[in-house]
Amino acid sequence: VSALIAIDWGTTAARAYVLDGAGTVTGTRSAPLGVQHVQDGRFADALSALLGDWRDDPAPRIACGMIGSRQGWLEAPYVACPAQLPDLVAGLVHVPGSRLTIVPGVRTRDANGVPDVMRGEETQIAGAIAARDARVLCTLPGTHSKWACVDAGRLVDFMSFMTGEMWDLLLRHSILGRLATPGSPAGGVGAAFERGVARGLGPGNLAHDAFGARTLALMGELAAEDVADWLSGLMIGREIRNARAWGQRHGYDGSRVRLVGADALVARYAAAMRHADIAVEVADSNAAARGLWRIATQAGIVSPSAAASGVPSA
Amino acid sequence: VSALIAIDWGTTAARAYVLDGAGTVTGTRSAPLGVQHVQDGRFADALSALLGDWRDDPAPRIACGMIGSRQGWLEAPYVACPAQLPDLVAGLVHVPGSRLTIVPGVRTRDANGVPDVMRGEETQIAGAIAARDARVLCTLPGTHSKWACVDAGRLVDFMSFMTGEMWDLLLRHSILGRLATPGSPAGGVGAAFERGVARGLGPGNLAHDAFGARTLALMGELAAEDVADWLSGLMIGREIRNARAWGQRHGYDGSRVRLVGADALVARYAAAMRHADIAVEVADSNAAARGLWRIATQAGIVSPSAAASGVPSA
Repeated sequence: VSALIAIDWGTTAARAYVLDGAGTVTGTRSAPLGVQHVQDGRFADALSALLGDWRDDPAPRIACGMIGSRQGWLEAPYVACPAQLPDLVAGLVHVPGSRLTIVPGVRTRDANGVPDVMRGEETQIAGAIAARDARVLCTLPGTHSKWACVDAGRLVDFMSFMTGEMWDLLLRHSILGRLATPGSPAGGVGAAFERGVARGLGPGNLAHDAFGARTLALMGELAAEDVADWLSGLMIGREIRNARAWGQRHGYDGSRVRLVGADALVARYAAAMRHADIAVEVADSNAAARGLWRIATQAGIVSPSAAASGVPSA
Repeated sequence: VSALIAIDWGTTAARAYVLDGAGTVTGTRSAPLGVQHVQDGRFADALSALLGDWRDDPAPRIACGMIGSRQGWLEAPYVACPAQLPDLVAGLVHVPGSRLTIVPGVRTRDANGVPDVMRGEETQIAGAIAARDARVLCTLPGTHSKWACVDAGRLVDFMSFMTGEMWDLLLRHSILGRLATPGSPAGGVGAAFERGVARGLGPGNLAHDAFGARTLALMGELAAEDVADWLSGLMIGREIRNARAWGQRHGYDGSRVRLVGADALVARYAAAMRHADIAVEVADSNAAARGLWRIATQAGIVSPSAAASGVPSA
């Protein structure tokens, strides 16, 4: 018997999990039905399509991610940092006429007072952290990667980096892509990636350093098929350099990081972190489902009997 | 009587100047016939189209810019830094069967051994600098802006920044553009630009800081029509911060900069530099023509009688 349907509903894709009364994931489904692909506010139809024959399951549904943004189904206003599980629970919004509850995003301000935001990652963090964890520096690779300082389950502060999106833009649309093998499969963590990481871990200006992807190729010092990996290494390396310094300013020593995520990027970040002498722990890939379970049980959305075991075993 | 036809022939556009025997510019023509718009190597036709009724003028022609690149008419291999006028002259290449001579580009390596290159800017610098100038820090705004340390006419070193291209990509293709007024006329140097500059002049990671263009707009702290200017200020400010530090490492104090260029970007850089307490001298907008004249006279391409006056008066 299912106890909860948990949905990680982002900009481009949506993934649904069915969990039993012990919080164990017993099935998953995904579809390219991210918020930006849903037309005219037809979110109910999209959810039905995503769930397929689960749609008649009476279990409550809970979702995190861009589905709670202004462009989503119903806005769940951002909760301010520092944020704990009860703050996320207090910010839950219920979609009228449905069985769906949406988790709020979290906001903070950087040292210059500029806002920063996340939606979905707060839930992944909740799923990747145990209450006994003190002072964990988390990294969530992605189109817009996030670094988070978490202290005993409390999200103290976080920082976003457009690393993934900028890398993609530079490779596809800028002059840097012209000397790269078209569609070269970035994903290698070999010598070219390592060279880029080494460069990125040093000081510099990204608008200058990225230009090296062109000049190295022009001078025959970087093969066309290595341009994408070199640039990826550079940008991830620079992110690690700056994010680690940010963590240190928060009192996290940056010698150890918990990597949260499920996609191929995690392997690239792990390789770059090893290069930077950072010890890496990789959280299990169901962090979003686990976080949604924790929030749902805390909120009483999951019926007490179903949630009897308290802690998910997935 | 014309003494020289000088052509600044770049990636997207070409501009031709006619100079008299005193080196005075007596006419200019331009056309969207940059190297990337010339098909199948038909550069002779493109030059003819650019020159129009000047095409029968018997004066010698000299060109700088991407026309001397591997994708251009004939490759003029890069000359290494430090480079002086005689080095550029030694690197001139003559296009067989034509009256055209092409100026080489210049190459250097940054502190990490990564190559850097310029084509065209070396000629603008030659035109913007007088022999009596000692230790001038030059800035050439553009799609790929260049900063150059010039000592008594000798190009000591330079550094490229993809600032302009990255700004354009981020605004047109990234998530940052979604909350910006489409086609909003970046060009203002008002309050939003100044806010961005102030942010850019501080330390930070560009992949994080640029994300502020979204979050500020999302939080209602930056108007949609100001997003482009804020982002421009951020990126130009960051360039100034890093380039000034680079100049200082070369022994240039960075309190004074010579801005070289003719487009609207110059005004933006000038405004940002004032904000950074940098004294700005703006070189006249015919720097390329003046530089080509200096190279042509030094090379003996301009006949001695025509070049009698030696120094251009344009």
